[in-house]
Amino acid sequence: MDQIKVFSPATVANVSCGYDAMGFALETLGDDMIFTKTDSKGVIISKIEGADLPYDSDKNVAGAVAQLMLKDSKANFGLDIQIFKNFKPGSGLGSSAASASGAAFAVNQLLDKRYPDLELTKFAMQGEVVACGSAIADNVAAAIYGGFILVRSNEPLDIVNIPTPTNLIATIIHPQIEIKTEDARKVVPTQIDLKTAISQWSNVGGLISGLYSNNFDLIGRSLVDLVAEPNRKKLIPFFDEVKHAALKSGALGAGISGSGPSIFALSEGLETAKQVEYAIASVYKKSDIDFSTYVSQISKTGTRIQ
Amino acid sequence: MDQIKVFSPATVANVSCGYDAMGFALETLGDDMIFTKTDSKGVIISKIEGADLPYDSDKNVAGAVAQLMLKDSKANFGLDIQIFKNFKPGSGLGSSAASASGAAFAVNQLLDKRYPDLELTKFAMQGEVVACGSAIADNVAAAIYGGFILVRSNEPLDIVNIPTPTNLIATIIHPQIEIKTEDARKVVPTQIDLKTAISQWSNVGGLISGLYSNNFDLIGRSLVDLVAEPNRKKLIPFFDEVKHAALKSGALGAGISGSGPSIFALSEGLETAKQVEYAIASVYKKSDIDFSTYVSQISKTGTRIQ
Repeated sequence: MDQIKVFSPATVANVSCGYDAMGFALETLGDDMIFTKTDSKGVIISKIEGADLPYDSDKNVAGAVAQLMLKDSKANFGLDIQIFKNFKPGSGLGSSAASASGAAFAVNQLLDKRYPDLELTKFAMQGEVVACGSAIADNVAAAIYGGFILVRSNEPLDIVNIPTPTNLIATIIHPQIEIKTEDARKVVPTQIDLKTAISQWSNVGGLISGLYSNNFDLIGRSLVDLVAEPNRKKLIPFFDEVKHAALKSGALGAGISGSGPSIFALSEGLETAKQVEYAIASVYKKSDIDFSTYVSQISKTGTRIQ
Repeated sequence: MDQIKVFSPATVANVSCGYDAMGFALETLGDDMIFTKTDSKGVIISKIEGADLPYDSDKNVAGAVAQLMLKDSKANFGLDIQIFKNFKPGSGLGSSAASASGAAFAVNQLLDKRYPDLELTKFAMQGEVVACGSAIADNVAAAIYGGFILVRSNEPLDIVNIPTPTNLIATIIHPQIEIKTEDARKVVPTQIDLKTAISQWSNVGGLISGLYSNNFDLIGRSLVDLVAEPNRKKLIPFFDEVKHAALKSGALGAGISGSGPSIFALSEGLETAKQVEYAIASVYKKSDIDFSTYVSQISKTGTRIQ
């Protein structure tokens, strides 16, 4: 195989109660990437469409991951990478994770799949270091494993794949404002009440139980975030209105995607998810903020060959 | 039905990572109780064996729960209660919860099962108020529902029954020292680092995933408590030695049962659980502390008719 075209999904990290521990991948929103083997060693980024990202392959997330894997595997070829971004960086939908995971997945295909998913996640986490300075696992693990994932432990890295009810549909709204990850982190307290923590882990337990048992009501009851959302929501205009509109339209729950500004909702069934999309779009239509909305199944496979 | 004999199980609350949120019931250790209808209204405790507990039915946990339910249901009969305690109060194995849950279950049988399990749990929680001043749900919910339970929320009460691998066996050691619940609570911090909290809820997610998917390794990796155990273990002599001996003998994990002093271990298979029993008993045999050990399957049914 000399060339491969891959799709790498957008991802929702945190998922309300699962702050810094859970994530899921979208089926239909994500980046397209083409990787072509070259005779000369080294990695070239030859095309980037849809976003203003660095062509320097040390500074480009996908380039950095690819270089790392070629070096680790002592590959006798180089790579040309083309990146087609279908959603914007800074959305809170794991843009850098999509680039990093897409690269990890694609290079592994070109290396005859020598690395298991856990190792691919570790490589992709190095892409997150290039993007934001931290080796954050939740988005890249969701992108690589697909479905819902739990980062049980960062050190050693332990990723648990959680089954996802087929009829669970995500609705996303991305208001096009900028929130710096650093600012989003800063507003979350470094210490929390034990009582708050107990509620949060009870809800994580409920969400995971609901996913295993196809119990949509339980999933909905568990989509509660007492840690990040109360502090971060002030960074997102109309957050409360959007959440209220989503729930009123039948969503099981709604919350901030990653560190925002995107907001996600989960619904049982496509019809409800589309009603939720209409309702939350209506909130932003009244403002002068540009926005995009997406409705998508949860991706079962994550990164995949196109 | 004029008389009923019930078995109400001992229970392990917290289960390492699931502090104040999880619990499980034992199959073979628990109290026997006999409830007999009387013509005269009111509740009499006519016999208590195995423990020094109050005969005054306002102060007796089982008596208080029975009175509450007879009043709530406007029953036209009274009750005579006989209690046979097979494990000691103050063990950290839910002694008061067994009395409270046994009463709630038995009275409901005599009332033609008019209350669902969630309501029985609420009645039994009032027994916990009599015992310790707080309406704690974890032990009573485990006793009533059986298996593993998650208290997703206290207000409103929301109990999730988690499936339990058949081959998951508990080993318990009860060193006969006294730890007051109040003291055990006092050593647990009221604020915790967010990082610690994230690890804890990641492990709750891992434990619940492991239970659903029969993944014993994952169950073992998730049996980590960063919140209560590091502070409470100093109240339990030889805790570290017991835990080390349990793990060395093949246990998946071990921790403090409830607020102690009992220590539980979970193992895959009866043979390993018995090896664990031998190993942890050996630790206390070297001391002058009396102790009891138990090996039991997880109870699928919880409170039951004998």
